[in-house]
Amino acid sequence: MHISINQVIKDSPIGQKITLKGWVRTFRSNRFIALNDGSTIENVQVVVDFENTPEELLKRITTGAAIEVKGSVVESQGKGQSIEIQATEIHILGDSNPEEYPIQPKKHSFEFLRENAHLRVRTNVFGAIMRVRSVLAFAIHDYFQQNGFFYVNTPIITGSDAEGAGEMFRVTTLDAKNPPLTEEGKVDFKKDFFGRETNLTVSGQLEGETFAMALGKIYTFGPTFRAENSNTSRHLAEFWMIEPEVAFLDLDGNMDLAEDFIKYVLKYTLERCREDIEFLNKRFLEEEKTKPQNERSSMSLIEKLEFVINNDFKRVSYTEAIDILKNSNHNKKKKFQYIIDEWGADLQSEHERYLVEKHFQSPVILFDYPAKIKAFYMRLNEDGKTVRAMDILFPGIGEIVGGSQREERYDVLVEKIKTMGIDEKELWWYLDLRKFGTAVHSGFGLGFERLVLFATGMTNIRDVIPFPRTPQNAEF
Amino acid sequence: MHISINQVIKDSPIGQKITLKGWVRTFRSNRFIALNDGSTIENVQVVVDFENTPEELLKRITTGAAIEVKGSVVESQGKGQSIEIQATEIHILGDSNPEEYPIQPKKHSFEFLRENAHLRVRTNVFGAIMRVRSVLAFAIHDYFQQNGFFYVNTPIITGSDAEGAGEMFRVTTLDAKNPPLTEEGKVDFKKDFFGRETNLTVSGQLEGETFAMALGKIYTFGPTFRAENSNTSRHLAEFWMIEPEVAFLDLDGNMDLAEDFIKYVLKYTLERCREDIEFLNKRFLEEEKTKPQNERSSMSLIEKLEFVINNDFKRVSYTEAIDILKNSNHNKKKKFQYIIDEWGADLQSEHERYLVEKHFQSPVILFDYPAKIKAFYMRLNEDGKTVRAMDILFPGIGEIVGGSQREERYDVLVEKIKTMGIDEKELWWYLDLRKFGTAVHSGFGLGFERLVLFATGMTNIRDVIPFPRTPQNAEF
Repeated sequence: MHISINQVIKDSPIGQKITLKGWVRTFRSNRFIALNDGSTIENVQVVVDFENTPEELLKRITTGAAIEVKGSVVESQGKGQSIEIQATEIHILGDSNPEEYPIQPKKHSFEFLRENAHLRVRTNVFGAIMRVRSVLAFAIHDYFQQNGFFYVNTPIITGSDAEGAGEMFRVTTLDAKNPPLTEEGKVDFKKDFFGRETNLTVSGQLEGETFAMALGKIYTFGPTFRAENSNTSRHLAEFWMIEPEVAFLDLDGNMDLAEDFIKYVLKYTLERCREDIEFLNKRFLEEEKTKPQNERSSMSLIEKLEFVINNDFKRVSYTEAIDILKNSNHNKKKKFQYIIDEWGADLQSEHERYLVEKHFQSPVILFDYPAKIKAFYMRLNEDGKTVRAMDILFPGIGEIVGGSQREERYDVLVEKIKTMGIDEKELWWYLDLRKFGTAVHSGFGLGFERLVLFATGMTNIRDVIPFPRTPQNAEF
Repeated sequence: MHISINQVIKDSPIGQKITLKGWVRTFRSNRFIALNDGSTIENVQVVVDFENTPEELLKRITTGAAIEVKGSVVESQGKGQSIEIQATEIHILGDSNPEEYPIQPKKHSFEFLRENAHLRVRTNVFGAIMRVRSVLAFAIHDYFQQNGFFYVNTPIITGSDAEGAGEMFRVTTLDAKNPPLTEEGKVDFKKDFFGRETNLTVSGQLEGETFAMALGKIYTFGPTFRAENSNTSRHLAEFWMIEPEVAFLDLDGNMDLAEDFIKYVLKYTLERCREDIEFLNKRFLEEEKTKPQNERSSMSLIEKLEFVINNDFKRVSYTEAIDILKNSNHNKKKKFQYIIDEWGADLQSEHERYLVEKHFQSPVILFDYPAKIKAFYMRLNEDGKTVRAMDILFPGIGEIVGGSQREERYDVLVEKIKTMGIDEKELWWYLDLRKFGTAVHSGFGLGFERLVLFATGMTNIRDVIPFPRTPQNAEF
């Protein structure tokens, strides 16, 4: 039986004979193998008795090769590690031709690694990112389950297109070239698999609300989709979203929940992924050094995480935010691309960044937005012009959470649906929630990859998901 | 601040004044409200001082109405509950017109409830199912995370159609009626969103393998899709699947893992969902009573769960299974629809059920199947005609797990791909795993809804997923 490198390093069973299996990261001086098996970012040093090892075998110990090592655990002579393995047997499980293997022990560009997404997770950086991603995902489940929430799998394929959150992907089994047509010459979606036109979901919120109004507290955690032609470092066509929804919770409670939740999952991850995050912290600092002094972050990755964990998010109404922006030197000197001149303007990411990074230098929760720039289901305030919406803005990331208290009043909701030109019939089941035992309820959506970006200090969202889907790219 | 009914029942804070919010299940004698808030299957009894409560208010306390109750916790006078609430204040939060509300306190058919999937979770049965589903999902994450596995989100939209696991849904943004055509008159998928034809994934296994060959142990847990026109109680077009994949693990280890995993998650769920499962157990026994004596289950739901948790699964090779089936009276008397007459036959669910329910009366792991009836990626045995595949069969459910040791030898795999007529170029990245540091590795897929079926004693898979997707049905 072999054991994991993580286990060996943790237990340091000096003097014991063990078997390890893993991949060669480097092999130097025909003597020292840095072996990694993915269980931790740390390699274990295997010392080869090269004088008693056939030349043929030594030649096959190359970067990327899979090997089995039997040997004794001894205290390390070298620095930077506490133990090493004195090998008594080495078997090659799988060769790796150094002339062909794309992942060499040198710095590769992220672009190159994206094209080799099936292998990039063998590097230190991507191994660390993906381990952090995994622990962060578990922290999310852990938080909700501990706090009495139930996990709900809302549908991925949906016949409902009423939310209007963005462009959608059609899901179909109709013949692509010659679809069946109706008598009027339109595509006859009645003949499609589901007997109607269907799309990939843009959000599980509406279905999630039906469960919150029965189970009380629920959350979703699943893939969502946007067919937007956005080739930016912040957008993916396929990404994972977390959407809690809570009955009998108002907007203030919703803000408390979101803040508590984010702090918990970041703290959990920082504690459990210490080695990975320390490695990513170093990488972050090295990257910062390549920037001009005035563009460098004032905090390291770990300092940023600790700052969020230990400080209250600033809560600022949209109206206050507009005042701050309007009166800012940035606005007066026309440094914004979109000048803020009146209440009601939609905030661009330049404005959000100004608020978060320059003015407050802290995560910010903006709330009570103008009804006109927000979705139909948000609770109208008594002023008749703002809604109980909230967005959480993070330094370097921008919007990480969008949420609201939902409109629970049947008449107000129907009116809003009509005004916005949405087909009321499509939403019969959503309206039922307001007809039968309606109550104040709230929820939010958090883009998982944006949270992983923040936790890892990475800057391109394509680097924090295993196989990114973007316009013109669905390889693997 | 209100507290949850689950908390009140657990803490029994006799004498304290509390606030509850929930939905009325029943209201009898103008006096006793059974209140539920979804946090537990148990209702709390609220005793109304009806002599001092306005008639107008009493009339609005109807099944489904959302109410707020303030009152004192007292020891219950009635049986079946330890505490009740003496109400001092009752507020109607949301009415529920009894003439219109579909979920009345009586037995509804599952068919009717499926048409009201947005409200069915307000019933005892579906509340229990969905809470069990949530805890089971968490148990799965818990098992893997505790055992050093990393969670991987493999892509939902995929350009890879090489696995051949079944019919697929096309994902597209092309105009449905007039798609762009190439010069040869074919649909020009280069103009589609991803620059190629894309589908919804049928399995994350192949991508999962790339991560296992870097991180060692991984698992997926995400939605998968089959565009098969199967209108059965065991099939969904959209379902959730768990797919662990482990480097340096052979088929025996894979069977050990699957068995240990299933036992862990069922035990975890049975312990933590005791009330819900006891309720489902009663429902199960009542349903059994409606069946003819000879068709009734010999075990209750809880006994079935305990049997699986406490007994070894039988491990039987395909060859042994064929012998058993061939020599069975069932076969000789031609009671099978498909008579087993020779080695190599694909097993139908009638055969699987015979083995599990009649012959072994235990979960069974079948292994070493004929290569011809299994997928291309399975490890060929030394006999040259069987592969290291394994299926786990459950009583009443049939196949719940399908797995294998993967073919790790480049040449053998390429040969197999060619023989099966699969486009080798499509799988360049999958083949890379065998070129660079290949090693023995194994994994399996478990259909989450089938596990939920087993854990809840339900019989139709549409009743264990929030919003089922089946042919002609994508409502909500």
